Amino acid sequence: MGGNGTSGAAAVIGLGSMGFGMAQSLLRAGFVVAGYDPASVALDRLAAAGGRAAASPGDAARGADVVVAVVVNADQTEAVLFGADGCADAMAPDGVVVSCATMAPERARALAKRLEAAGRHYLDAPMSGGAARAADGSLTMLASGSEAAFARAEAALAAMTGTLYRLGDAAGQGAAFKMVNQLLAGVHIAAACEAMAFASREGLDLARVFDVITQSAGNSWMFENRVPHILDGDYAPKSAVEIFVKDLGIVVDMARASRFPVPVAGAALQMFLMTAAAGMGRDDDASVARLYARIAGLDLPGQE
Amino acid sequence: MGGNGTSGAAAVIGLGSMGFGMAQSLLRAGFVVAGYDPASVALDRLAAAGGRAAASPGDAARGADVVVAVVVNADQTEAVLFGADGCADAMAPDGVVVSCATMAPERARALAKRLEAAGRHYLDAPMSGGAARAADGSLTMLASGSEAAFARAEAALAAMTGTLYRLGDAAGQGAAFKMVNQLLAGVHIAAACEAMAFASREGLDLARVFDVITQSAGNSWMFENRVPHILDGDYAPKSAVEIFVKDLGIVVDMARASRFPVPVAGAALQMFLMTAAAGMGRDDDASVARLYARIAGLDLPGQE
Repeated sequence: MGGNGTSGAAAVIGLGSMGFGMAQSLLRAGFVVAGYDPASVALDRLAAAGGRAAASPGDAARGADVVVAVVVNADQTEAVLFGADGCADAMAPDGVVVSCATMAPERARALAKRLEAAGRHYLDAPMSGGAARAADGSLTMLASGSEAAFARAEAALAAMTGTLYRLGDAAGQGAAFKMVNQLLAGVHIAAACEAMAFASREGLDLARVFDVITQSAGNSWMFENRVPHILDGDYAPKSAVEIFVKDLGIVVDMARASRFPVPVAGAALQMFLMTAAAGMGRDDDASVARLYARIAGLDLPGQE
Repeated sequence: MGGNGTSGAAAVIGLGSMGFGMAQSLLRAGFVVAGYDPASVALDRLAAAGGRAAASPGDAARGADVVVAVVVNADQTEAVLFGADGCADAMAPDGVVVSCATMAPERARALAKRLEAAGRHYLDAPMSGGAARAADGSLTMLASGSEAAFARAEAALAAMTGTLYRLGDAAGQGAAFKMVNQLLAGVHIAAACEAMAFASREGLDLARVFDVITQSAGNSWMFENRVPHILDGDYAPKSAVEIFVKDLGIVVDMARASRFPVPVAGAALQMFLMTAAAGMGRDDDASVARLYARIAGLDLPGQE
């Protein structure tokens, strides 16, 4: 931990709605925070909040005890750690990387191995919870890693999380739990969209369907969270279709590699792919309902 | 409503765990209750609880103001109403049938039409909630029907339900809402089983997976309800695989008839069919997890 009455020096790489919120939580907890994002508007926002806008991942990580990588996937994580002007060499010699991207367990294991070979620590820490919980420091993290990685990340984790699961002593276990969650989350979104479009086809009052289902055995966290987007016809991306193209893609790749069939997840993945193919990949993932509506000529709210 | 200080005369056809619980709720509310079930043990249980064990559906319904049909499907409902010694002719001339089986909307409409032609009223009233809520009078019912049907069933509905949705003025609408719920419920059970078996393949601690998922965005009502059966290796049927073979079968039949694709529900149906084909049709519907385990040689609790 650093001096000057602070909790230490932290770097946040990736300052989107999640990363920026996590940076705010770290600042509030007394960390000195530097951050990097390719978007200058994100850097300006960090500076306005009291952080240091860095010129590269390595610049942000210079001397940092904790580097929080909040990027989209394993490739981006690898690039910000080991690419040109990356974090791995710039951060404190015994610092820890808290890696938040959803990725296949084998990728997390490989990143950990490479980082540990450079003397640093790696915490596999995919997360659950949206931007609001990132900003108020109440994220859920599904974490695994060495004792040393947990110990060095402890104050930063306390600042960012409401619920911290310690799921194992090696990288990859947090990632695997996250992929089980994503299998379910992806299927539930596709099912919610299929069910609402089916209800529309049957001529039912969709607001009433939402009321009834959320009080019945057909409810899911995702049904409750995503169906209001359908009712409002609001497909501005809170979480984009492409996220589940990626995450269910990881699930089916993992399953295929271990010779395990996942036909329900496979069907859901095809629906996200159809929705992306129809030009809605960057829209909200509830757009799967719009795909069904377009196919069947249904009159959903917000339907072109 | 009948005299003698009672709430009226009710008949309950089908005295399984649901029907018997509903009979108890009607008795507690002051109804004179007669019941019929082909199983003599069910009739004895009703008699012990203060009801009259009848010799046939028609015998149970003789003079009843309200007939509650709690059988498995549309065919059985049709048989108890219109078959040999059925209820339709025996019940009070302006009585109401509360029809609780899950069925396609067109079947509910046809039954209502035929019953109304005989001067009686029909309430399309599929339900949600298990045996415990049947017994304590707190079921959820997804009801539709004429004003007259609702009015005549009012006291009985008050005795049996905690939440009564009035979903339309004609039979078929309650059924359609129920089928939307069953689409989701069936997909969520199959997804829960697929996810737990996938987690087992990945070597995760399944009890820990349950803890994490129930606190995360991948949760569903069905995940929370059914996964404990998997963890306990307990496949004694609380709700059998065959129920979702039937209910998802109705969903895909409805969808096909209206030229609407339901690929996610279709994939889930195939998993219930595979589980039934493997000899587990009468076991608990969480047995879909055992099917994945058998296919992949996983060591789930209770696995042979």
